[in-house]
Amino acid sequence: MSAGDIRYAVKVGRWEPDARGRLSVAAMELYTERGFEQTTVAEIAERAGLAERTFFRHFSDKREVLFSGADVLQELLVNAVAEAPQAASPIEVIAEAFAVAGRVLQERRDFARQRQNVIAANPELQERELIKLASLAAAMAGALRLRGVNDQSAALAAEVGVAAFKIGFERWVKEPRSGDLPSDIRESLEELKAVANGR
Amino acid sequence: MSAGDIRYAVKVGRWEPDARGRLSVAAMELYTERGFEQTTVAEIAERAGLAERTFFRHFSDKREVLFSGADVLQELLVNAVAEAPQAASPIEVIAEAFAVAGRVLQERRDFARQRQNVIAANPELQERELIKLASLAAAMAGALRLRGVNDQSAALAAEVGVAAFKIGFERWVKEPRSGDLPSDIRESLEELKAVANGR
Repeated sequence: MSAGDIRYAVKVGRWEPDARGRLSVAAMELYTERGFEQTTVAEIAERAGLAERTFFRHFSDKREVLFSGADVLQELLVNAVAEAPQAASPIEVIAEAFAVAGRVLQERRDFARQRQNVIAANPELQERELIKLASLAAAMAGALRLRGVNDQSAALAAEVGVAAFKIGFERWVKEPRSGDLPSDIRESLEELKAVANGR
Repeated sequence: MSAGDIRYAVKVGRWEPDARGRLSVAAMELYTERGFEQTTVAEIAERAGLAERTFFRHFSDKREVLFSGADVLQELLVNAVAEAPQAASPIEVIAEAFAVAGRVLQERRDFARQRQNVIAANPELQERELIKLASLAAAMAGALRLRGVNDQSAALAAEVGVAAFKIGFERWVKEPRSGDLPSDIRESLEELKAVANGR
């Protein structure tokens, strides 16, 4: 984009640096203040100082503000599984993928905490979250199978990994004492191993 | 109910032995033949030789034919967790509960297989099934906490147990070679342990 393009865009009101980020922040504020159900797209756009049509250029609906990140996360995890060293065991591959994702999510703790609270207050959003996690487990199992892992081990390693991630992530979001998401996920996986071994 | 009561009920057409069972069988046949979406309650009642109002005495809607058993299963599992020996570790408690449930489910393999196929063909039913499994894990974690197990271990043991159950159950339903559901769940749990230990 040239300087002239930018001047033109500013003049006609189409220069919206980080519109997506501003819409996300505005939406999360409103979901927190009024509840998800009580918030309209028009209000989100207004709070962000943007037009409603701009919202729809970035998100298909107000629920997608909460869940589009889950698709990005899934892609990240699936790629990390594909790229792990060939010698790694299925659970090591999964653990490493979550360590990579943890380092990225780490940066978004405030958003993650607000998001958890909004979801916890709404049964329909809780259901959507469960479906996203199940879809994540299925995608990771698929990526393990592509590495030559058998169906059963792939499904089990993915389920175990997602369970450890979910519980480690919840703890990290809730308790400010734990600073480091990758460590929390790793710790949760170690605890899961201990539990599976009957301790 | 006296012999006179029964004669009266037969005369006025209200004697419906095992109406619930007949409605379940009829529903599952129709869901399999036509698909879940394409089946109406009226058709289910007709196939079962019963009135539509009889259907609604037993089920709130056509989806409940598929999912009311999940509530019974959950109650059975939660009770089994509560009644397990106090010395058992969390995962042993969960494994024993699934062994008890497995012996009950065992008897309903035909229904279970048809049910899996109907659910596999419909994304909305798949979502409902995931939600039921998540609710099951939450209920079992709650029952473990009542035994004095800490939050984290309770959540992990329940997630691990439900994952092993799900995968063991799917295998048992799909592959006629494996006759015994409790063994399949136990085996799945052993494999999960091996996977968690990095094998």
